[in-house]
Parts: sequence; C-alpha cells; structure tokens
Amino acid sequence: MITLYHCHAARSFRPLWMLEEMGLPYDLKMLPFPPRVLAKEYLAINPLGTIPFMIDGDTRMTESSGICHYLGTRHGPTPLIVGVDEPAYGAFLNWMYFSDATLTFPQTLVLRYSQLEPEERRNPQVAGDYAKWFLGRLRAVEAATANAETLVAGRFTAADIVIGYALRLAENIGLSKDFGPNVTAYWQRLQARDGYQRAVAAETLAGEQQKVARRS
Amino acid sequence: MITLYHCHAARSFRPLWMLEEMGLPYDLKMLPFPPRVLAKEYLAINPLGTIPFMIDGDTRMTESSGICHYLGTRHGPTPLIVGVDEPAYGAFLNWMYFSDATLTFPQTLVLRYSQLEPEERRNPQVAGDYAKWFLGRLRAVEAATANAETLVAGRFTAADIVIGYALRLAENIGLSKDFGPNVTAYWQRLQARDGYQRAVAAETLAGEQQKVARRS
Repeated sequence: MITLYHCHAARSFRPLWMLEEMGLPYDLKMLPFPPRVLAKEYLAINPLGTIPFMIDGDTRMTESSGICHYLGTRHGPTPLIVGVDEPAYGAFLNWMYFSDATLTFPQTLVLRYSQLEPEERRNPQVAGDYAKWFLGRLRAVEAATANAETLVAGRFTAADIVIGYALRLAENIGLSKDFGPNVTAYWQRLQARDGYQRAVAAETLAGEQQKVARRS
Repeated sequence: MITLYHCHAARSFRPLWMLEEMGLPYDLKMLPFPPRVLAKEYLAINPLGTIPFMIDGDTRMTESSGICHYLGTRHGPTPLIVGVDEPAYGAFLNWMYFSDATLTFPQTLVLRYSQLEPEERRNPQVAGDYAKWFLGRLRAVEAATANAETLVAGRFTAADIVIGYALRLAENIGLSKDFGPNVTAYWQRLQARDGYQRAVAAETLAGEQQKVARRS
C-alpha cells in the first residue's frame, strides 16, 4: 500500500491526482499546514518537514513531480507516461522538471511575501518580481496549448498533472486573472476530468475526517 | 549531433558534465550572461531566454536536470541512470527532481538579491531567508553522504551530477563555508573526477574561443 502525506491544496496534490488517474490504492494522511510547526511529530517521518512525503515499501520520496514520475513508471505501464522511444519523450521530461523548478517555486515566493509572512516581513517588490517571473515562464504553456488539448504526445499525461497543479496554485494565490486564453481554457479542461474531481473529493473527505479526529 | 547552449558556471553545466561522463559528441555554444539581455538573437532559438537549451534532432529542452535524465535514458544504457527495477530507483528520481526545484532555485534568490540587482533593489532579508532555506534542505545531502561515496545505488550516477552542480553554485555565491563535513568531502570527491574536470576544461576553452570571436 502506498502512503501519501498531504496538506490541503499543497504540492502533494500532484501525486494524489496521479494515484487517482492510475486507479492505484493508497492511504492518504492529512496534515495541518505548515506541518513543521503544527505537526512536529511529522519530523520523525520526514526530517525535512516538507510536503509531500510518499512511502512505497522501502522507497521514500519528497519531490511532488518526481513521485508522479515514479508512480507511472514503477507501477505502470500507463499511457500517463511518455516512453523513451516516443518522439515526445524529451518534451515530456522537460514539462515534468519544469513543473516544480520553474512554475511552482516562484509562486511560493509570491505566497510567502504577500500572505504568509508577518506584516513587517512582507515584501511587495519580491512578490511582484516572482509573479512576473512566473507569468513569463507560463508563456511556454500558452504556446504549447495553442493548438492542442494537452501538453505532449497528443494525449493526457503526467505532464498535464504536474503542470495542472501549478495552475491550481496560481488560481489559489490570485495569479490566474493573468492567464492567457489558451492556459485559461486548458485549465478548465483539466478541472473537468473525472480523475481531477476524484482527487479533489478525496482531499476534501480526508480533510473533514481530520477535523473530526482533532475535535474528538 | 547534440547542441548545448551554455553560460559560464550556469545550470547548463549539468548537461555539459553529463555529456562528458557519457563520452557523447556535442557542440557547445557559449553565451554571455544574461543572454536575454546580452544576446537577444538567442530569443529566436529559445523564446524563454533561459539557459540551458539543448537540441537533439527534433527534441528541444530547457530544464538542466531533465536534460541529464534525457541524455542518460535516450542515449544509454549507462550506469549513470538508475533503472526502474533497481531498489534505489525512487531515491534516484527524487535526487534528480530535488536538485533544481529544491537546491538551486533558493540559491538564485541569494544571488539575485545580494549581487545581481542594482543596489536599491537588493534585499538582505530575502537573500538571508533563502540562504537558510537552502542550507536546511542541504541536510538531506549531508545525511545521504554520511556513509557513502555517492548519493544512491552505490555508484556515481546522474544524481551526483545534478546535485554536484548545486554545490558548485553554492561555492560560487559564498554558501560553501556553511557546508557540513560530509557535503564538504563529497564535493571534493566530485571535483576530483575526470569527467568533472573535462567539463570544466571544455567550458573554459569554449569561453576563451568566444572572447576571441567577439574581439575579431
């Protein structure tokens, strides 16, 4: 059984969505955010205190896009993975790495310096620098979805899951008003998927169960 | 022939090092930093203006760790890649993704807000926040190299290349004085490799040729 540690709407949503798309059984453990402050016992499980954390037998992983890559290759075969011999393999890998290193980290700066930090440590300049940075890099997604339903290989893949999460985060922190028309339509298509909706439902249910458990 | 666009000591050093370790032929194109300002013609090749950019037949890639992954799998087999059926596969993938998303992006903030920005836009608070953030995450490398020569699978792999570059960057921007003893020794071992030294020599030679070309 695969165990996934998750916080509501955090990057761990990527592997949760991947698990739902693959139909794999899993145990979802919800944590309050940020766990390194509000659930210190979690540091015994993941010393970095970061989310996600995935356990599969002897395998332990912390990188959200890397876990999706792992699930699809180790627990495949699945059309969600573009194979080494397919023409789109390099483009697929590029989106997988691009999703977190290039499209998610800048957003965490916007969130941190406009909302999470105490008033005196907030910094509109830095938040603005990285909102601009994110939107600049997002032009690659705008171009890729101009004439295609999905990012690569003419089908829905793990690349759409990991990039899709970056769009969910952007919506949550107020950046989606600056999406281009192709990204806006692409993000609508992703949210209409059964697999996406099952992942959101699983997250909501686990969150409610956690609240009940904390009250009792 | 594989073409790699590179700036001195930039993330594109990862695929350069990987190419040298694999012994693959390549064409190295040096650019001044930052290319989106100093080599505007580059935007016609890579509209994002980012470094690296790799061309291999019809494949185009921009993500430094993703390119290493691609080279090892598409142009392998090579022991630099940990296979899906090896026990260390998940750990290997995790280091591959961790290298840029978790260990490199925070360093770019330190560099930007302590050195690259004009004086009035510099920000010691943000530079300090992300120096601390980087060193916190680096504890994972300190732990992994406590009793091992390399990160995973009992051998030198692409994971050591992509993490090794993050250590090179840290040294260049003044963060290596805070490395733990295991990371310090590990970084020394990486620099002693023939493949690393060949990559540095290739970078130096290409840089000198570029200077001569610009003068003439």
